[in-house]
Amino acid sequence: MSTDIDVTPVQAHSIESFDHETDVLVIGFGMAGAAAAFEAAGAGARTIVLERASGPGGSSAMSGGEIYLGGGTSVQRACGFEDSPDAMYRYLEAALGPYVDTEKLRLYCDGSPELFEWFVARGVTFKNSFFDRPAWIPPTDDGLMWLGENASPYRRLATPAPRGHRPQVEWSGGGVLMQRMVAAVAEAGATTHTDTLVTNLVVDQGRIVGVVARKYGEQVTYRAGKGVVITTGGFVDNEQMLAHHAPLLVGHGKVSDGLDDGSGIRMAAALGANTRRMSVTQLALNVIPGLVARGILVNARGERFVAEDSYPGHLSVEAIRNQPGPYWVIVDQEGFEEVLEIDLLGTVPTHAEEDAAELEKALEMVPGTLQSTIELYNAYAEKGEDPIFGKQERWIRPLRGPLAAIDPRVIRRASSEIKQVGTGIIGFTLGGLHTTADGEVLDVSGNKISGLFAAGRAASGIHGSDYVSGTSLGDGAFFGRRAGRAAAGVAV
Amino acid sequence: MSTDIDVTPVQAHSIESFDHETDVLVIGFGMAGAAAAFEAAGAGARTIVLERASGPGGSSAMSGGEIYLGGGTSVQRACGFEDSPDAMYRYLEAALGPYVDTEKLRLYCDGSPELFEWFVARGVTFKNSFFDRPAWIPPTDDGLMWLGENASPYRRLATPAPRGHRPQVEWSGGGVLMQRMVAAVAEAGATTHTDTLVTNLVVDQGRIVGVVARKYGEQVTYRAGKGVVITTGGFVDNEQMLAHHAPLLVGHGKVSDGLDDGSGIRMAAALGANTRRMSVTQLALNVIPGLVARGILVNARGERFVAEDSYPGHLSVEAIRNQPGPYWVIVDQEGFEEVLEIDLLGTVPTHAEEDAAELEKALEMVPGTLQSTIELYNAYAEKGEDPIFGKQERWIRPLRGPLAAIDPRVIRRASSEIKQVGTGIIGFTLGGLHTTADGEVLDVSGNKISGLFAAGRAASGIHGSDYVSGTSLGDGAFFGRRAGRAAAGVAV
Repeated sequence: MSTDIDVTPVQAHSIESFDHETDVLVIGFGMAGAAAAFEAAGAGARTIVLERASGPGGSSAMSGGEIYLGGGTSVQRACGFEDSPDAMYRYLEAALGPYVDTEKLRLYCDGSPELFEWFVARGVTFKNSFFDRPAWIPPTDDGLMWLGENASPYRRLATPAPRGHRPQVEWSGGGVLMQRMVAAVAEAGATTHTDTLVTNLVVDQGRIVGVVARKYGEQVTYRAGKGVVITTGGFVDNEQMLAHHAPLLVGHGKVSDGLDDGSGIRMAAALGANTRRMSVTQLALNVIPGLVARGILVNARGERFVAEDSYPGHLSVEAIRNQPGPYWVIVDQEGFEEVLEIDLLGTVPTHAEEDAAELEKALEMVPGTLQSTIELYNAYAEKGEDPIFGKQERWIRPLRGPLAAIDPRVIRRASSEIKQVGTGIIGFTLGGLHTTADGEVLDVSGNKISGLFAAGRAASGIHGSDYVSGTSLGDGAFFGRRAGRAAAGVAV
Repeated sequence: MSTDIDVTPVQAHSIESFDHETDVLVIGFGMAGAAAAFEAAGAGARTIVLERASGPGGSSAMSGGEIYLGGGTSVQRACGFEDSPDAMYRYLEAALGPYVDTEKLRLYCDGSPELFEWFVARGVTFKNSFFDRPAWIPPTDDGLMWLGENASPYRRLATPAPRGHRPQVEWSGGGVLMQRMVAAVAEAGATTHTDTLVTNLVVDQGRIVGVVARKYGEQVTYRAGKGVVITTGGFVDNEQMLAHHAPLLVGHGKVSDGLDDGSGIRMAAALGANTRRMSVTQLALNVIPGLVARGILVNARGERFVAEDSYPGHLSVEAIRNQPGPYWVIVDQEGFEEVLEIDLLGTVPTHAEEDAAELEKALEMVPGTLQSTIELYNAYAEKGEDPIFGKQERWIRPLRGPLAAIDPRVIRRASSEIKQVGTGIIGFTLGGLHTTADGEVLDVSGNKISGLFAAGRAASGIHGSDYVSGTSLGDGAFFGRRAGRAAAGVAV
């Protein structure tokens, strides 16, 4: 039934002698693995990180690099923002909900100022400057950005403060971030074995005591005297697991290094480990945030469905999870021309028509639908209001004259022909192993599986049913550190 | 972490002698368990059914009793409908999708005429008469009803034929249906032990050889020489499992006998069994279908979102899964008065106002929203059309004069005070153990777990991401029978 590798647990007595012995084994060298290995090695445990790729970094190194941090960091203060762990908690509880893990979230928010300092001490530089435009990933090297805190409905639920912390580099910061982490892990004294794909956990009377791996086609075995930490990432690269657990992502683009096939989740589940929230996903729609904020985002029926100045991750999830597609960004000429060229990424409209009636015809909508939406939007925009979705006044203006539509399924560049970009949707998975706040993996009866830990996207972290950018690197680091210390036997 | 019973597998060598020995054990006596036990016993296997309640029937006995059957049954023919397994397949593939199990669905549709005859042979009577009104559960004893086949978008995808087959009884038929099934199981020679809660599977070197149960507080053990069939139902009664896997149902009403706590799913998962589609749920909104069809159903923003003559299960799922609540049924006086008293169940409007402007005020909607929806609806209704959602012409008429709103969260009876009915939402779970078409339970590596079978809502059946009424009793019976035969060692 499955083309996946067989992850059936291996009994310890079947292994005559282990090829390697250590205290703590960390499986996977992304952010969570780095954090776990750093702490385990720092606590004095002999630590080996096993990475299936030829080098460390994983999906973390390919990410935008934003880390969700707050509660009053030096960057926040330097940029003029006050913040508190409580305000951070209130925002995340709403934005990651419903059904956030309140215990983990409280720890995460209370520990966030310390986590920020930990990154700084690892050599990660955050510039004391604030990026104040709608964006997925800023083109600047600014250290701070909004991640939805200032958009409706959240701005009414918690005092807004920007908490997107960015390594000092233009565009994506994941690579620079992981360079620092890899160096820190080496300095802490952990060893890394690359090209080493872990396939099975080794069990001795219910306790996890090691792993079986493959390196260049050969089997290699590792004994772990203290613990095994699974930080193998999510399962967006496993189409069968997606179909079984998170079908919303089937057929869409993957936010990953191509190796997030859920192997760690499967290895533990083969032992009776419990999983949690396997259907929850991050989703991103291929839209230019500065255009969306200045216009409206509509579904296939020509209806708005979100405050268009929301963090683009939020409006994407609302679109893809709940709204019939295709989706369209509708702007007028004035709005289009306001967007900075560097933010536009060369985007030009896929459709342009004289008015709403012509545009809805071009978009094959039922006559009257988009017209009705724009009429109501404009009536309130005249007064600078958006009582339906609560867009901030800064972005509200009646849409006038010729209207353009942009289709997230295609990238149409000023410089080139139309290029299909698949579905215009990319994402990754957030469900995984059910763990304690110390990363201990729980079985389906709620018992701890002795010697087994997990963190990062192989585990179910602070997230309930939703996502905010930066919380994956953030909770991967935070709970990866705790798992590393717990595996090393340090009281957390 | 968990208040659930501990389902850790028990090793066979730890049990000195078993209290009972048989060939096939069936855990749970709902529809799937009855079908499995009937076939296992009929194949000559000694068969015991273990039921935790004091009597058989389970959630099946409390259900409406509709069974999704077609492909050309005698009832369909007598009522003047042509049907084929292919048309049935095309409808269910769309209505249960995306990601239906195409192998199981093909078997189910091709085998449906035979399954109908099997029910008849078991003594279930289906009257040769057709119920042609929108309803959850008809008040009549008619044998056939629509289950969404004639509503948009499905009526354009597959030749519509009604396939809701009903035991000959007014209102809910689940009780009568299960009476017949229980009698058939006894006649086939299977034994039933009630008040017997199975807590653990017994494993002997990877093979399932029995179970540990509790009866009146005492432990009792069963050895199964041929196989154990899990038909324990879903997990809607387990709030923790809901929060982990199907949060959409947390806090809502349960469609169950109160004992669907996922124990069977957990027992198998504790052994490394794979689960599938754990987030998928059936959902029902407390609306009167005849009222909805004659009016419009709107979300908190006053927007329509579905063809209101859809099968109420479909419009409920669309509402609850994708639309912001509260939801409102809006009708005019003429529409209200058209609904038969027996279908109204005493419902009276929760709000009544002179026009749309007044009504949207009363419902605390943003001024202009509901007005805009009704204006567009009426403009097309004048022409007998609903190009946006495709409601059938039969139900289309402009909404005129005083308008009423009905709130699914309350039942307001003509005869009594307003009564809160919680959230107005009830449902059950559809995800469960990953099985072959013969009910063999697969582990997370795709290997069969020797001696272990599952069917009904403890397993993931034909369903993809969606549901149609009658498919739970239907696939429970169909795949329960196959699992029973496979467990008895009969080539299926």
